Amino acid sequence: MKIVVVGATGAVGDAVVNALGDRHQVIKVGRSSGDMHLNVESSEDIRALYEKTGKVDAVIATIGHGYFGPVAEMQSDQFLQGIEHKVMPQVNLVLEGIKHMNDGGSFTLTSGVLNRDPIRGGAAASAANGAIDSFVLGASVDMPRGIRINAVSPGLLDVSVERYEGFFSGFEPVSSERVGLAYLKSVEGANTGQVLVVD
Amino acid sequence: MKIVVVGATGAVGDAVVNALGDRHQVIKVGRSSGDMHLNVESSEDIRALYEKTGKVDAVIATIGHGYFGPVAEMQSDQFLQGIEHKVMPQVNLVLEGIKHMNDGGSFTLTSGVLNRDPIRGGAAASAANGAIDSFVLGASVDMPRGIRINAVSPGLLDVSVERYEGFFSGFEPVSSERVGLAYLKSVEGANTGQVLVVD
Repeated sequence: MKIVVVGATGAVGDAVVNALGDRHQVIKVGRSSGDMHLNVESSEDIRALYEKTGKVDAVIATIGHGYFGPVAEMQSDQFLQGIEHKVMPQVNLVLEGIKHMNDGGSFTLTSGVLNRDPIRGGAAASAANGAIDSFVLGASVDMPRGIRINAVSPGLLDVSVERYEGFFSGFEPVSSERVGLAYLKSVEGANTGQVLVVD
Repeated sequence: MKIVVVGATGAVGDAVVNALGDRHQVIKVGRSSGDMHLNVESSEDIRALYEKTGKVDAVIATIGHGYFGPVAEMQSDQFLQGIEHKVMPQVNLVLEGIKHMNDGGSFTLTSGVLNRDPIRGGAAASAANGAIDSFVLGASVDMPRGIRINAVSPGLLDVSVERYEGFFSGFEPVSSERVGLAYLKSVEGANTGQVLVVD
């Protein structure tokens, strides 16, 4: 299969490439590294990416960041960061990608642990995750030509423990290998409209 | 209790006022009807509303609409309508409202059935509901002074069956009385971070 991985050089993207890279033709997309470059916040850039890739069999998005801070001090535009930098780029990769997706292909988006196991300061991130999880369910009943769509919702990755020191106190890290397997299942399996939780 | 109901003149708002109106001081807020008027898309208007109400014991938001249409033809700005007209107004009522909320008060937001029971053309609405459901969980662990926050997720209301003719085929309507009870539970109960499903 020809698979586009957007966010291929992040921690989750690494796990995806390790799980899929030997089995499929993986096109690694990053902001400034990888096989192709993409500003994920630009719908125009997303359209241009698909013009270059041509028809694909799977798109995996492992991108997104948002605001962390106490809800009592949060401003509207801070809340919106998760929508702008995580939800919309992933949704736009789907909306723009459907016409470039081969029959029976799949989209796999990435949410995260915070809308099942919240932390202080994480309300905006929780909301972004919830939007993604619910979008894949809603979109799954609407997809043409047997196209599938799922989300992977990983817990704290083993390789990211140091980076998030102090935020995820007591969270049991999950192995990058297990996270990679969830993407493999989404791409090669029959699931659609599902949130594949890796805890 | 002094309770602000934003969206008081809609179908769900009616159910809320019927359930709470005899027991509490309810301030009905609508776009152009009710005790006070509000453009919910404006954070400035929301701030002005709270300046007028003064301290409150509960805020209930029963507002929001979004785009319905096939995901294969959906544009990014159509998807965004649910974020702009449902998610952000409700989130902003919380962000702006915390400092006007009495200790131990509560926020109750409104999502809906489409992120547990999707329909064709409903992907954007599903995502908006998911953002709200997940926001209340994330915000609940972060609220100061014992303030609580929940969402009510009603199915298709009995009084709305005709309005949505053809969209919710086979959905069993729920009574407005049962929907009202969920808001009553959120306001007077001890729950926080919960999605109160009425199916």
